[in-house]
This record gives sequence, structure tokens and C-alpha cells, in this order.
Amino acid sequence: MASMAAAFIKPTNAFPQSPITFVKTISPSIQLPISLRIRNNARRRIRVSCGLIDPDGGKLMDLIVDESMRAFKNREALSLPRVKLSRIDLQWVHILSEGWASPLSGFMRESEFLQTLHFNSLRLHDGSVVNMSVPIVLAIDDAVKTRIGASSKVALFGSDDRPVAILNDIEIYKQPKEERIARTWGTTAPGLPYVDEAIKNAGNWLIGGDLEVIEPIKYHDGLDSFRLSPAQLRNEFISRNADAVFAFQLRNPVHNGHALLMTDTRRRLLDMGYTNPILLLNPLGGYTKADDVPLHWRIKQHQKVLEDGVLDPETTVVSIFPSPMHYAGPTEVQWHAKARINAGANFYIVGRDPAGMGHPTEKRDLYDPDHGKKVLSMAPGLERLNILPFKVAAYDKTRGKMAFFDPSRPQDFLFISGTKMRTLARNKENPPDGFMCPGGWSVLVEYYESLVPANIGSIPKPEAVAQLKSCRS
Amino acid sequence: MASMAAAFIKPTNAFPQSPITFVKTISPSIQLPISLRIRNNARRRIRVSCGLIDPDGGKLMDLIVDESMRAFKNREALSLPRVKLSRIDLQWVHILSEGWASPLSGFMRESEFLQTLHFNSLRLHDGSVVNMSVPIVLAIDDAVKTRIGASSKVALFGSDDRPVAILNDIEIYKQPKEERIARTWGTTAPGLPYVDEAIKNAGNWLIGGDLEVIEPIKYHDGLDSFRLSPAQLRNEFISRNADAVFAFQLRNPVHNGHALLMTDTRRRLLDMGYTNPILLLNPLGGYTKADDVPLHWRIKQHQKVLEDGVLDPETTVVSIFPSPMHYAGPTEVQWHAKARINAGANFYIVGRDPAGMGHPTEKRDLYDPDHGKKVLSMAPGLERLNILPFKVAAYDKTRGKMAFFDPSRPQDFLFISGTKMRTLARNKENPPDGFMCPGGWSVLVEYYESLVPANIGSIPKPEAVAQLKSCRS
Repeated sequence: MASMAAAFIKPTNAFPQSPITFVKTISPSIQLPISLRIRNNARRRIRVSCGLIDPDGGKLMDLIVDESMRAFKNREALSLPRVKLSRIDLQWVHILSEGWASPLSGFMRESEFLQTLHFNSLRLHDGSVVNMSVPIVLAIDDAVKTRIGASSKVALFGSDDRPVAILNDIEIYKQPKEERIARTWGTTAPGLPYVDEAIKNAGNWLIGGDLEVIEPIKYHDGLDSFRLSPAQLRNEFISRNADAVFAFQLRNPVHNGHALLMTDTRRRLLDMGYTNPILLLNPLGGYTKADDVPLHWRIKQHQKVLEDGVLDPETTVVSIFPSPMHYAGPTEVQWHAKARINAGANFYIVGRDPAGMGHPTEKRDLYDPDHGKKVLSMAPGLERLNILPFKVAAYDKTRGKMAFFDPSRPQDFLFISGTKMRTLARNKENPPDGFMCPGGWSVLVEYYESLVPANIGSIPKPEAVAQLKSCRS
Repeated sequence: MASMAAAFIKPTNAFPQSPITFVKTISPSIQLPISLRIRNNARRRIRVSCGLIDPDGGKLMDLIVDESMRAFKNREALSLPRVKLSRIDLQWVHILSEGWASPLSGFMRESEFLQTLHFNSLRLHDGSVVNMSVPIVLAIDDAVKTRIGASSKVALFGSDDRPVAILNDIEIYKQPKEERIARTWGTTAPGLPYVDEAIKNAGNWLIGGDLEVIEPIKYHDGLDSFRLSPAQLRNEFISRNADAVFAFQLRNPVHNGHALLMTDTRRRLLDMGYTNPILLLNPLGGYTKADDVPLHWRIKQHQKVLEDGVLDPETTVVSIFPSPMHYAGPTEVQWHAKARINAGANFYIVGRDPAGMGHPTEKRDLYDPDHGKKVLSMAPGLERLNILPFKVAAYDKTRGKMAFFDPSRPQDFLFISGTKMRTLARNKENPPDGFMCPGGWSVLVEYYESLVPANIGSIPKPEAVAQLKSCRS
């Protein structure tokens, strides 16, 4: 199975790309975790007990209908009341369909929504608890609710007016927007990006139910083959004989401080006795706010980091995490960690102010930068995951490279914030030597060059994809 | 031991009042649950396994120092940096001191505060989980923080400038006010009573630590003998041979709908096979908002309800729950339930919109009226508590009394809201016969009469206490 690392660095070992042919051997209704028709199309059943951490709830959800049922489900969908999916809704369908949110079987019903808001966790029928910190919900307005009437099912339609999924045994309940926002973000200040994008103007009702996704979600943006599902990732880790998987969530370009941290983590895991710890470098690929570096450019930058040998492709899997970004700090970091359990990671690296941002109306961080790692270490349902708190890396002027901060000689260290990094790249200035590999930095500069002033923050898709493709060939 | 019921109705069985002499046999540092020098001063050890539900964490905290140590602790307190307690702070010291918040051993440190905000629960060292939904924290300002300096202990002083307690092994951390409010109330709208009273103008720091309370908290308001601690309540239930204890939290006058519900609950418990279910009628006695009926008048009203035979004093214990009120709906109802586990209750009655109020800035309920009971039924750490959802009682015009609402004949029922009830009493009008016992209603009318227009909402203490005393004699 292809990881990006494999695809770029070990072409002989690579999978066919665009799209990966990936056929399941079992009915999605059974939803056994890792049972896949793989590379050679031989039927091979891989047990979860291969050493990887169990998915939440014991099995990895797979909500995509069996290929033999697609035409039937497509016809059924055309006969049902319709709910139109926004771009973010579709990303959640993607997340749910592949089991990143296991054991969720679809958009949350009220019981799951309330548990998420109040407890950041769900109690399962057997009394066990899994983490679930952000509501994965689908909003509808009054008109759609009326149109649904007494139907027990609806069809979810994409922006191209084709059916994407069927939602079964639906439950419609009020969306308490203010309360949802307050409990998820710990503020109701105006200007929260996800709220503005996905909640403020959405309907006042939420519709939950069990999803049947008609076919795998694809974006046809040249990056689909890098969106490995949790089942594919687990298979990749098993095929590499991983005895530990450590996940690194990011939504920014990788600099040498990140790289130091990741390589140091591997060293620590080896010291602990693991023989083959594999890094899951798992950049977030769903909705991000306008001033974040778009996914295409980030992937291109990550590729350069691998090409430049900053990270070892033999022990690194780069793959896109298709979740939208909440910027909900300590609440969201739990989601990021929990989803990676389902992808097979048993170690999770957490840094300063994970999923944080500036307060939208006050001159301060929205969250205490230490709360993320503290909350993560205490979160219900994440007890099985080993949390690895970030050491602070900064630019060591005496050594001309990124190094772990030494509090005994603070004057020797330079902290380069994301804002500073973006400003330098935008002005075509260079950061200090050793901050980022030259290939990676040039991608950043190129990205900012590509922005015409009136267009800052938008995603310059076609060029990025073209450049990416040329790099990959 | 005195319950109010016992005190009013069975005087021969009553305890000496004002104050109850109540001496513990064991050091508070050991904090075994129910080991008390009781009525006859004989040393008697009562095992928790007497049939009552175990306290959270397995033992009932008792943070009051042994009488032999009081003088010593008092002298020590005088030598320490001082923190002045507000009225609400003192109520929390009271709550903590008697173990209502077991297993909390004092004001929350940051780890407990964060778990409360994010998970409404605390994970204990043995991996078990207890519910804890409202932060029990002590705020200090910059000046006090500076004064504390590097001291590991502080003394907590009352409004009379006498030491109340020592807080040991302190931890000072930032109070994220906005986040605390948003996550506790699900809104940051201005006008939340507890926020205005206790958070908005409080300091920007919180100080946690282990409490040693120098002597039992008393208010000297004529009601101290009705403030039974969880240990005293447990003892009372045991002495009555209770095989089930069902708690009813309230902060309003008792009308016949409440009474119907409580007597019906007892009947249901008898049907389930319990032979002696005891009702804990446990009115909240700490801070309430200005337009709630003050505690003194409520207690007087509850007394009339017992005297009029609406509730059976043989199977009812009326006692004050000394907690302040948050009006935080689904979040707070968990606290109300959890505290009653510690008081020995294994059944908890929950109604419509518990701990709710109108939205402070919008014309709607702050919380969905059904969320309270839903959240309560799913709350971590409350699995051991049997939640008894309220049947809706209303005035049945055809029968001239309060009855359970029959949806097949809605036209026959009259719903009398708290607002309507207060308006009637304020205007000296009578509710329909059978809504409330005449004695109870007359107390309400008397209360509103006692308010001079300029003084609405304040607590007319002296008169109320005087009247209460005359009733009790």
C-alpha cells in the first residue's frame, strides 16, 4: 500500500496511484476492521492483534457500501428526501465513512451530541468509554426538515447533485448553537473560523443517523491517493512490521524543529525497546482558515522535507487526515488523538497550544498553551494512547540549527513563530540556516509568490496540483 | 440524629438544636466515612456496607480538624498569609468540609479544574471515575497572590476576620474566566447570577489545595441544626433502617405536584420490593438569585407541608443542602445528584429543566428543558445512581387537585409555573384548591407581604427566623 513516503522515495515499492485500487473483501455491514483485498488481490485476513492498538469500540467502522450494492443504493437515494452537503459536511462524511471516528456509525444523534458536548466522550453499550470531543453533526434548516417529514431515511447529496450517502433511522433534534459553540470552544466570541464557516449560517436542526456511503469519498484534486484510510494505514504499518506507531498531527509546513522532535521521538521509542517505530506524519487535509498554508502546498513542502532526507522515508508514512479543523484547542486535540488511535497509532506527540489560535477579539491566545497537553493526558477514552508531550525546539544560534531549548542559556535561542515564518516567506527573506531544509523553504516562498494580493488566503488549486504532480513523477 | 421531620413532628425523638453537638471519633486526616460519636456519645462504628450507597471514591471526606487540634490550627492560621472568603467561598468550604464533594480534599487544583470543565468528571488514582461537573474553586487577585509569595499554605479567613481553615500544598493557577463560564453554562451572555456574584469581579487566579477546616461551619441564622452533613444524613438513614434513599433537590416552595411525585416515587420503590424507602427532601441552602424565595421562608413552608400531612414525616428527612446555586442546568444537575450520592441517596428524582432559568438576554429558556435529565442519565460517575425522571404533574381541574398530566385530555389540566405561583402569592390571590396545602401557601403570602417594595428579593432575615422559631417550638 502506498504511503507518500513510499510513493516518493521507494518507487519500486509504490502502489499504483490515482486512484489506489482498494477493494474490500467483506460487506461493510459487518464492518470488521482490517480485512482487505490487497496489492496482489489475494484475499488475506489480517488480525487486529498484529500488535497495533485496537480501534475505539473494538472494530474499525467502514460505512462504505459493498461495491455490489452501489447501483441499488444509488437508486434508493434518488427516491429519498434530499439533504445537500456543504464542503465541510462532505469532509465529515469522509471521516465517518472510513472509521476515523469509530465507533460512530454516522452523524451524531442527540444522545451522542450531548455526551460529546458535556463529557467529551461516549459510553458504549458494554459500559466502556471512548473519547469523542467534537460534535460530528449535520445541520438542516426548517425547510429541509419539513421536506423530510416522517421519512426514516434521507439521501445526502454532494455539490454536484449526485447522491453521496443514505442516512438511516434518522433523528432530528434542535441545534443549540450558542451552547454548542460555548462548550466546544470555551468562548462565544465572534470570529471563530469554523463557527463562521459551518455553524453560524447553518440550520437550527441537527439530523443524526446511520450512514451508508455509496462510494469512497474522492476529491479529484490530485491528492486522493495520499488520503489513506485508517484501514489502509493499519495495513501499511503491519506490512512494515511496525511495533510502535507514533502520530504527528500538523497543519503547517514542517521545519527542522518538528523534524528534530519526530526523530528524537523515534530514538526514545527505540530506547524503550521498540525495534521498529513508524512515524505517521498526518497533515490535516479538511477545512482550514484562510491564512493557513493550503493543503496542496503543505503536501508539496512535506515531500521536499522527505526528499531532502530530513525525515527517514523508511520509517515515515505521510498521509492526509481528511478532517476539517475546528481550532478548538484542548477540546479538538482530543479528536486529533482519538482519530489516530483508529488509524493504528499508540503514541501521540502533542506540542504547545495544539489546535489553538489567537483569541478572535482579544489580544491573547484563545487557550492557555499548556492546557492542550494537560487535557489530553487526562481525557477519558484516551488512556490506551501514550501521550508524548513536545519538548520545545528553537533555533540554537551557537550551533546554527534547531535544537531543544536549553533553559540554562536562553540568550542562545531564537523562537521563530508561525507568523514570523510566514512573514519571512511572504517577503522572500530567508530564515536562519538550519531552520528548514532549503527545498521545503522554497515551496513556501513559491506559495506566497503565487498569491496575487487580492487573493491572499485562497487556495490556488490548479498550479499547486500541477507542480505537485510534476514533483511526483 | 435530628432530621427536620423528626424535629417538627416527633419532638420526643428530636436532637438538641442550635447547634447540634456532634463530635467525631476519628482524626480528619484518616477520613473514614461514617464513624461518629453519636447521640449517646457512645463510640459506634457504622459500616458503609449497611446498605447505603458508597460515597464517591469509597470514603466520605471529613475535612474538619479534630477538636483537640483546633487551638493549634487556629494559632497556625494566624501565622499564615491570609485569603479572605466571600459568602459563597464560605459555602464551598462548608460543602468541602463535610464531604458533599467527596473525594475532593479541598479547593480544586488545576488538574481537577480542567477535568471538571472538559469532562464533568475526575479520574482517580485507581482509574475509577467520579462525577464532578461544577468547578469548586477559590479565586484570588494579584495582590493576594503576591502576598502569598512562596508559602505552601494559606489561611482562609471569614468575614468576621477569624480563621476558618488552612489550605495546604497550595497550587496557584490562572482563572480562565471566559472559558470557565462558557464551558460551565454553555453561554457567556451577561446576567448569569452566579457569574455576576462570584466570578466577574473575582481575581484572575485560582488557588487549590488540601483543606483543614478549623471547626464546623455554622451560620448562626437559626437554621444550623437543619444543616445535616452527609455523615449525619447517612446515620439518620441507617437509624431509620432505610433500604432505599431517594433524593429530591429543590430551591422552591413545595406544592402538591411535588408532593404527589415524591409519594408516588415511594410507592414505586415499594412496588420494586424495597421495604422502607426514605425521602431526602434536601432544599438548597447556599447562594440563590434575588427573585428566588429565601431559604428561611422555604424552610418554614416545607415545615408547614409536613405539618399538614402532605408528606409523611416517618419516611421523610428534610435537611438543607448548603451548596450555592449555579443555575447551570444540565451541568449543575450532575453536581446536585453527585452530592446526594455522598449523602447516601441511591435514587435521584429529576424534573423538567433542572437548575435551569430563562436566558439572561434572549426570550427563551437557557437550556432545552429535556437536556437535564438526558445528560444526568448519561453522566460519567453517576452510573450507580438510579435516575428517576419526573412525571409532569399539573392541576387537574376535573378532580380539583394536582395529578399526573394525562395527554389524552390536556384541556383538563392547568400548568402553574413558578412565576405564576409567585405572582399569585405576591398579589395575595389564592391558587386553585389543592395546588398547595393552605399552611404552606400562607407562608408564601406572608413572605411577599414582608417585602417592602424597595426591598424585593432581599432576605428579611430576623423576622423569618423569629417566625420559624415560634413555629418550631
